[in-house]
Parts: sequence; C-alpha cells; structure tokens
Amino acid sequence: MAIRSTICVMDRTLVNESLKKVEKKIKIEGWVNSIRDHGKITFIDLRDRTGIIQCVGANLPKVTTESVIEIIGIVAKRPEKLVNKDIETGEVELQIEEFKILALAEELPIDMGKEDLEVELPTLLDWRSLTLRHPKIKDIFKVQEVIIDSFRKALQEKDFTEFQAPVIIPQGAEGGAEVFEVKYFDHKAYLAQSPQFYKQILVGVYERVFAVNKTLRAEPSVTTRHLTEVTTLDAEFGFIESWIDVKKMVEYVIKYIFKEVDEKCGYVLKEYNTTTPKVSKEIPMIKLREAQEIIFNRTGRDNRKEPDLEPEDEREICRWALEEKGSDLVFISHYPVSKRPFYTFEDPEDPGYTMSFDLLGRGTEWLTGGRRITDYKKLLKNAEERGVNLEKSELYLQAFRFGMPPEGGFSFGSERITMHILGLKNVREASLFPRDMQRVDVRL
Amino acid sequence: MAIRSTICVMDRTLVNESLKKVEKKIKIEGWVNSIRDHGKITFIDLRDRTGIIQCVGANLPKVTTESVIEIIGIVAKRPEKLVNKDIETGEVELQIEEFKILALAEELPIDMGKEDLEVELPTLLDWRSLTLRHPKIKDIFKVQEVIIDSFRKALQEKDFTEFQAPVIIPQGAEGGAEVFEVKYFDHKAYLAQSPQFYKQILVGVYERVFAVNKTLRAEPSVTTRHLTEVTTLDAEFGFIESWIDVKKMVEYVIKYIFKEVDEKCGYVLKEYNTTTPKVSKEIPMIKLREAQEIIFNRTGRDNRKEPDLEPEDEREICRWALEEKGSDLVFISHYPVSKRPFYTFEDPEDPGYTMSFDLLGRGTEWLTGGRRITDYKKLLKNAEERGVNLEKSELYLQAFRFGMPPEGGFSFGSERITMHILGLKNVREASLFPRDMQRVDVRL
Repeated sequence: MAIRSTICVMDRTLVNESLKKVEKKIKIEGWVNSIRDHGKITFIDLRDRTGIIQCVGANLPKVTTESVIEIIGIVAKRPEKLVNKDIETGEVELQIEEFKILALAEELPIDMGKEDLEVELPTLLDWRSLTLRHPKIKDIFKVQEVIIDSFRKALQEKDFTEFQAPVIIPQGAEGGAEVFEVKYFDHKAYLAQSPQFYKQILVGVYERVFAVNKTLRAEPSVTTRHLTEVTTLDAEFGFIESWIDVKKMVEYVIKYIFKEVDEKCGYVLKEYNTTTPKVSKEIPMIKLREAQEIIFNRTGRDNRKEPDLEPEDEREICRWALEEKGSDLVFISHYPVSKRPFYTFEDPEDPGYTMSFDLLGRGTEWLTGGRRITDYKKLLKNAEERGVNLEKSELYLQAFRFGMPPEGGFSFGSERITMHILGLKNVREASLFPRDMQRVDVRL
Repeated sequence: MAIRSTICVMDRTLVNESLKKVEKKIKIEGWVNSIRDHGKITFIDLRDRTGIIQCVGANLPKVTTESVIEIIGIVAKRPEKLVNKDIETGEVELQIEEFKILALAEELPIDMGKEDLEVELPTLLDWRSLTLRHPKIKDIFKVQEVIIDSFRKALQEKDFTEFQAPVIIPQGAEGGAEVFEVKYFDHKAYLAQSPQFYKQILVGVYERVFAVNKTLRAEPSVTTRHLTEVTTLDAEFGFIESWIDVKKMVEYVIKYIFKEVDEKCGYVLKEYNTTTPKVSKEIPMIKLREAQEIIFNRTGRDNRKEPDLEPEDEREICRWALEEKGSDLVFISHYPVSKRPFYTFEDPEDPGYTMSFDLLGRGTEWLTGGRRITDYKKLLKNAEERGVNLEKSELYLQAFRFGMPPEGGFSFGSERITMHILGLKNVREASLFPRDMQRVDVRL
C-alpha cells in the first residue's frame, strides 16, 4: 500500500456521507479521535464535524491523537459481527490508500478517550481549547446554539425586531449594583448589566424588540451559578392589555425553545440522560405570598415575612409545582416593590406588590419579567425615591416624554438555561470561555 | 359621537390588517403620526409597527404628535378622489367612535413630519429616542437586522456553528492597538477588539464557526467611519484547500445578504434612492501591487511603493472595477506581511506578501479576510518577531499545539455595510446608539 503525501485534488467527503459511498474511493479529513495499533495494522477513528469513522491501514506513519489527517481510501462494508452500533458509520470502514498528516498534535495532557471527560473544573478550563473537543463538552454549545437561535425564531414569528444593544454605557444605571468600570479616553464609562433601558426605548420605535446581548456584572462571589459575563436573551413589547400578556409570551418562547431542543438535540439529551422540562399546558403562576404559605404548610418552614425566596424555598416550590400541577416550571409573581427595580409596575389591586414574576424551574430561577412603568412622572418619582441617578439617562427618559405604550418584557441568561436543561452542576460548564472573579481564560 | 374612555375589551387590529375589514368595527392602537385640524373635524394619522392609517372624528380631546392612542371605529372606503396612494391603507379611513389617549406626548423639539428628518448629526443623536421613530431613520435598522440575520442564515446553510465570543479578554492581544481597559476586581482586563483568537480556537472544535459580536476599539479620532463600539460579523473555517476558498465564502455570504436585503427591504432602498451594489458573477480580485499599477496608469499618481491604499486610491480602484469589470465590489489581495497581523499566512509563491484580502466597495473598505498560520512554531516565531505578547493567550496557543487544520476566515462591521448599502454619509447614522470619543448616549 502506498503512503503518499501528494496534494489530493479529490473533493472532501464528510464522514456522514461515507455510508452512501460503499465501494467508492473517497477523501476524508479530520482529527485522530483514537488509535488502536495491532502490529502492522492500525485502526484510526477519524472525527470530523459530522461524525466518526473507523479507518484501517498498514505501515502508517506515526501519528498522535488529535492530529489532523487526510485519508484517501475505499469505503468497505464491515462483516456483520464487526458492525459498531455506537457510531452512525458503524456498518462501514475506510481502507486506507493514502495517508497524510496535516498537523501533528503534541501528546495530550488529558485522556480525551473516555465517554465522560473525568476532570475537575479547573483542569476543564485550563485546557479549554482541547476539552471543548470532547463530544459531550462540544455538544453543550450545540444545545446553547439551538436555544439562542430558537429564541430569535420564536420572536421573529411574533413580529419582533432584533436589535443590537450597547455594551458601553454612560452610567451604572439600575441602582448601583456591581458594575464594571471602563477607562474611556479621559472619562469613565461602564459595562452594561442589562439592555433594559435600550429595549424600552425601542418599544417606542418598533413596538416589539428582542436582543441577544452580552451583559457584564462585577459579581464578587464565586458560586456555581454566577459568571461575570453572560449572554442574555431579552425581549420587550408594547400595547399589552395586561401584564399577563408578558407571562404568556414567556410561555410561548420557553415552549418553542424546548420543542426545538427536543427536535434538534435529542442526541445530546440522551448523552446527558435528561429531557427538557415537563410543562403543563399553562405554566402555573402563584404570588410570592402564596408560595410562602404553601412552603410553610408543606415543610413548617416559616418564611412568610421574607421579601424573596431562599434557595431551599425555590427547590420546595418546584417540587410542589411538579407534584400538584405536573409542571417542572412555575411562575412566582408579586414580589414586593422594594425588591424590584424602580421601573417595575405596582399592582393597583395589591399595593406594595409588583406585576412582575420570576420563572423557576428544577429548583432555581430561570427568567425574570413583568410590566414596566411607562408614565414619565411616576418613573421619575420612583427613581428619585429609590436613589437611582438618571442624570446621564436622558435617552431613556425621552422615550417616556414622547409617548410610550403600556409595555413589559423579560430576560434570561443563555448559560443558565443550558445548564438547567442538561443538568450541569456549574454554570461555567455552560459558557465556552467562562469569566469569573478568578479567571479570564487564564487564572488571574 | 361618543368619546368614551372605557377600557376596550376588543382585540387590537394592526393597521395593515384594516384593509381586510372594510365596514367593520375595529380597535387600533399606535402613535399620533400627524394631526390636521379642520374646525370640529380632526384628521389623525395613526402609526403602528405595520403602517399608517388616517382616522377622522369630531370633537376629539386635545392630543399631541407622538402621543399613544387607542381608537375604536368603522373602516370606511374613501371616495376615489380622496385615495392616498402614498400609504398602504390609502383606500380606507377609520371613522372614530371611541378615542382614548394612552400616553400624552410633550411638545416635540423636532419637526418629525418631514419626509427627510432635516437635522444635524448632534441633534439626531441628542434626541435619539425620538429621532429613531422617524420612518427613514427607523428603517435603517430594519436593513441592519436583515444584514445580520442573513449573515447567520447564509452560514447556517453551510453547516457553520454559531458561538458567543467573549467581550472581556485577558490581554490586548493583536499587537497593542487601541484597546479599552477594564477595572476587573483587583486586576486589569480589556475589551475585545475582535473575536479572532476565539473563532480560531473553535475551528479546532466545530470546523466552521461564526459569531455576531460586539467589538470595542479606543479609536482616538473622530471620523465619519469610526465608532468605538461595533457589531462585528465574523466567520472562520477549517479544511480549506486554498485561501481562495475564503474569498469564495465571502462572495457567497455577501451575495446572500444583498439578495435578502433586496427581497425584504426593497421599500427602504427606494426611500434612500439606492440599490444594493452591483456584483459580477465572480467578484474581481487583484493584488495590491496590481491595483497600484492600475491607479498609476489611470491617474499618474504613483503610490506603487506604499504598503496600503490611501482613501483616494480606494475610490479610484472601485471606479476601475465598475468600469472595467462591471462590479461595485473588488478584492485587493497580497498586502505586505508587515501590514497584516502576525497570524496572517504568507504566500510561499510571493514571499513578503500575504494570502489575505480586503473587500472594497463603493470607494471604501468593507471586509477583511484571509488564510491564517496554523503551524504552532511558525505562529510563535512570528508573534515574537512582531513583539506580540501571547503570555495570557494560552488557550489560543493550545489550539495549534493539539492539531489545527488549514483554515481562514473573514470579518466585517454591520454598521459599515449598512452605511454603504444605504449610502449614508456617517457611520453613526448606522448605529442605534453610536459611541465615539465624544459621546456615550450623551455628550461626554
């Protein structure tokens, strides 16, 4: 058998197309996924973006795992007893005629051959460019891609306009939470923690808008669910009849996303031994106070005077929703005015409480939304009372001075929803290049 | 006629649906686009996200332009001679039965009623939340939305994976150009000027990737074509046979975008009295030195020793491409090694010059791309010779240590392409909330 290194002028065949080319000569290109040496005969599993195929040849040059290779060979049916049911191309193998190394990989610091990449989080991230190539890791971001893309599609179908929200903002707007400061020429600027002001402004222009944006938060704690940089999915729309319209839009979007993930990422859900959350026809919604009452009745834990749910409360109310309402998801509404941003709409029929909600799922918060104040004077007054400085937020205020319809919206992080759908333990696993207090690619 | 202010339980009809509801009673909601008072009778043009409709009523409460209103009325055919051909609903008008003001607008600081919003740039931006509502301004970002969405669609059809590139980076990577510094807890971090390193890393994972990302550049000059914050469209892919594959992918994407803009935004092109650029079947490509020779022959201007094109050269070579090749677009290739980033692939058959290109259109640069160095040692050596510090770029280097296919890619700004398609004079007009040295929403 000739091992040549001439440049091949044949077109590339993708691995998953090889099944249709039995007995034909093809060229494939990809990474060495694994090598099994049997004396003169070597088996190489080649991986490309479409799958894995077994290649077999004699007297091959020495090659390492993850090297990039090009092979020309004949696609051959495997005998019945050698069929590998674990891979899509398991009925065939490629009999190598020409073999070329395009890039020789160094020896790997990690065993990439296991079904689960059994490494600790710091190792996972220290070798991120390598560990991302592991099938189960790589697939996390195929799910994230589908989540983000189906968020956009769902809203496009409802006549929403997509916009690009700024990252650099003039002022840490929403009441001084942890905001990153940027040296902006001779001035200070800040990084956006949310596109809230901009999406509201644009309701005045396009009625219905959404954005996929980067939001940055100088989160000083290292927890399993916080990142400093998040890809946030935001929507906002006007001419609502009631704040319930916002809840309904969330239901529609979330169900749309689950459907798309089921359809396009079934193989990943299987890999992770999970399913998308179970949702009832209408996702149940209860007031915070009702939730606290339910928790008290179920557990005896009395948090009925608290303005928010503790993590253990969130888990308990999710258990309740699944047991009593058949839903993995539950909306909690009517958080107290003091616990919500200054622009949140107060319920006229339940003073002191807001027409806003969190969506909880599988024991934790997924999404937040609600109706906003659109009356200019009321908005100004609230900001003042809450000590929110809107000095540099002229554009935001303009939107309300010149006619704003009743409106509301919602926001959620793509990493968290990816994490919760796949049952990952740490949100860092659901970020390609996670940033936190201790790491920006490399450890600080 | 009763002017009531009861809450209407009727469903909303969108303006463009009114044509199908002649003689029916409907509820519409939107902004007061204009008011014409004829004594007791008032004509109001109501605008919603789908269009404008004329409404007519008597004894209406006082209302201002841009106020948000809700009207219940009967759709009536207009007599032939009163048909307004300028608006889609020009054959009908709405006879007002109920009229409700949802939000009363302050008096406008700008005349929004003109076909062109005749204001200077600072005014356009100082009142951005209002000026964005002007039809011609608003439509700019419908074009931008289509550009970005069709970029994604074009590459999804070619099996590219979408990813989210980080904004915060550990190091101003590509040779110390103007980079913004962020106070990152007790450390310094920087804002990404490009997702270059990350898209290359991900070629090692998904083979073909793209991203719509925010890139930030501390551009210290105030020109008509620079912003500090840009929405950049980036693509990168592996297993190229030659750098020409990259040029071909650009052609495919650009043509796809033009087709979608033509199909979906024909009305905007008409408003701006323009067309998408004319492209020949194959967009011409010439080397920088050839371009300089052509310019010398055509104008006598001798820039044949320069490493780059001057603005006047860019305009001249675009004129040449249109006259001689019938194309509004032209690729210029083979910039000298010294003028391109350290990772740019040198042409082995033309030493000192790179397998990289700019795409010029209508007199200026649109896009840049080319093949990259994938050999780890060569890359390290180049970085060292160019004084590029890769100390914190371990993840980038890992990608090449563990097997990287031949690859290349390209990048362009969504604002510039929007500007050039519509023939806008200043790139700020093509950014919803433009940031520059002097402005972040408000003047600094």
